[in-house]
Amino acid sequence: MSKTVESRIAGTLIPTPDITPEELQLAVRNHSMPLEALHYPITPIGLHYLLIHFDIPVVDAGTWELAIGGHVERRLRLSLDDIKSRPQTTIAVTLECAGNGRARLSPRPMSQPWLSEAVGTAEWTGTPLGPILAEAGLRESAREVVFTGLDRGVQGGIDQLYERSIPLADAQRPEVMLVHAINGQPLPPQHGFPVRLIVPGWYGMTHVKWLRSITVTDAPFEGYQQARAYHYRVSDQGEGEAVTRMLPRALMVPPGVPDFMSRTRFVSPGTYTIEGRAWSGLGTVTRVEFSDDGGRSWVQVELGAALSPFAWRGWQHHWKAEPGEHELCVRATDSEGNVQPDTQSWNLEGVQNNAVQRVRVIANPVDEVQAPADEYRS
Amino acid sequence: MSKTVESRIAGTLIPTPDITPEELQLAVRNHSMPLEALHYPITPIGLHYLLIHFDIPVVDAGTWELAIGGHVERRLRLSLDDIKSRPQTTIAVTLECAGNGRARLSPRPMSQPWLSEAVGTAEWTGTPLGPILAEAGLRESAREVVFTGLDRGVQGGIDQLYERSIPLADAQRPEVMLVHAINGQPLPPQHGFPVRLIVPGWYGMTHVKWLRSITVTDAPFEGYQQARAYHYRVSDQGEGEAVTRMLPRALMVPPGVPDFMSRTRFVSPGTYTIEGRAWSGLGTVTRVEFSDDGGRSWVQVELGAALSPFAWRGWQHHWKAEPGEHELCVRATDSEGNVQPDTQSWNLEGVQNNAVQRVRVIANPVDEVQAPADEYRS
Repeated sequence: MSKTVESRIAGTLIPTPDITPEELQLAVRNHSMPLEALHYPITPIGLHYLLIHFDIPVVDAGTWELAIGGHVERRLRLSLDDIKSRPQTTIAVTLECAGNGRARLSPRPMSQPWLSEAVGTAEWTGTPLGPILAEAGLRESAREVVFTGLDRGVQGGIDQLYERSIPLADAQRPEVMLVHAINGQPLPPQHGFPVRLIVPGWYGMTHVKWLRSITVTDAPFEGYQQARAYHYRVSDQGEGEAVTRMLPRALMVPPGVPDFMSRTRFVSPGTYTIEGRAWSGLGTVTRVEFSDDGGRSWVQVELGAALSPFAWRGWQHHWKAEPGEHELCVRATDSEGNVQPDTQSWNLEGVQNNAVQRVRVIANPVDEVQAPADEYRS
Repeated sequence: MSKTVESRIAGTLIPTPDITPEELQLAVRNHSMPLEALHYPITPIGLHYLLIHFDIPVVDAGTWELAIGGHVERRLRLSLDDIKSRPQTTIAVTLECAGNGRARLSPRPMSQPWLSEAVGTAEWTGTPLGPILAEAGLRESAREVVFTGLDRGVQGGIDQLYERSIPLADAQRPEVMLVHAINGQPLPPQHGFPVRLIVPGWYGMTHVKWLRSITVTDAPFEGYQQARAYHYRVSDQGEGEAVTRMLPRALMVPPGVPDFMSRTRFVSPGTYTIEGRAWSGLGTVTRVEFSDDGGRSWVQVELGAALSPFAWRGWQHHWKAEPGEHELCVRATDSEGNVQPDTQSWNLEGVQNNAVQRVRVIANPVDEVQAPADEYRS
């Protein structure tokens, strides 16, 4: 295993809208949530987005153990049964990939080419992390908590297990959990079986899957995924700003029916209920606005209740489709005053691009619909 | 809704290996099965491939009914409970998209750009179709059976519900089923909730999801997905040959660990058990061969049992990785004498490309592995 061969350096930029074969390899592996699945308050298993850096590990739950060590008074080893026998909580949490929207940037940072759909909301069941850390006994020197997964690969020229850290204070928040179930079922392999971390409000890279160990450290973690990747930076100078919590975003279910290839939407003129979801990791979504003229004018839409403080809120809006072509947009504002920008926020890694969604819709009178077989045959 | 606007004509060819933004839109919607999931004899929900032409419909199972009509003595309407109260069968079936391998062709037909992973095997539960057709009473004129889904969109310039037919004799085969469960659970939305068709042995386009109606016809069905799409043709002249049953294919779990971006595989020199699966819709897989020199020499591997006559067979092979670079290949032969070709079988739609899989592996002595946090901290 070599550190130096064959690994692309982060920061490669692609000047064309066309996608390289290497990016395609990632796009076929990593699943996004088809936008019509925004209809469901809880994303069905198999429609939730997935970003998996390396391979999905095969884990034997019977022998699996989670090691807890580092700057603690006593090391712990927890089995899956140990985790299930602790106090259990279920919470709805929206997860979004930090790279959502990357493929809309120009030039495009070379990595997983997400459009707008790298999101999902699930009901996660498990046990809070804080009491486990307390049981291990935090030393005075404790500062960060590093989560190490069983998924291994080479990135940035470094052979590594996937690992990320969060500050100790964040790890002790009551909503931070070790979970073993999604939507009432044991985690499937792709969601981190048998146990993963959930850090509500943060972008997806933080929620380490296939947990192997938890290490309390006395210094900032310098691993690749923490210190090099997942930074917002617009130049090679300086480290940039670490990506943490999700910026606000609203998405709509595209109305009407699609063209297979172009995904252009067609509706007959008339009034439609446009529905969607909105979320922010920085606060509560307080306003969602809709535009049918490409963002020149906006109207406020009706907001539904959130499933939890860490899950998206539903919204809907009655839209009258006049004949012609329309560009529908939606944008969210949160309680901290963060508003989605109308334009892309370009950066070297293509993270945190929460520019407003734009959906092209053509409203034409129906001229001819191919009747299905049962309507034109006796 | 217009027939004429905005719809790409089938047959557009892309001369470069780069993927257009339109193809990317399809690639982020449609899920393939990461190759490491070949480890599982039954593909976990969420890892099975998905190809969805239009949008995933939202269906209310309480009011849903399946209409059976056309050239029958009596029309039937079946509820979900009606289908569940009929005799139940569970069968393991391998499904593969007819377009699997399309993105490896040059020039590349414009459509969903699959690499090699558009496959999956599930245990489907439901009731055989034949007795339902018998109950409706087939007229002497009956010739084909058309299956119409609730998924609607524009393709080839035609506004349509997705629909496909099979000859009556095929529809009466005992393994052809209307299913309501996958892997012991109700169908999730993306797999055709509440009821879909399963036609074991055939490529995926035949297994119509979100069934709305079944129509017995006295003439070949001329709908878009049947008469125009899904044909093997190498020129615009003539109709080509209709795509039906799956050609043989073997795939391996790529050994070692991947580079995030290039997906190149790294192993330390040593002996590895290479595992994979092989299937054919034309017969039983009788031989799987492995090569570590790009297909210049082949050795036969050990075959496991099939889960059913319609599911893939596992295989494994002990491979000694000598230091250096290797191109691993695998190919299947079936009981009808069909063998996977070494080279692409180019055609206008990019269907049935079952050329052998090629996996590049670099075997290097370990020089430095980044230790995970728990190994380098006290």
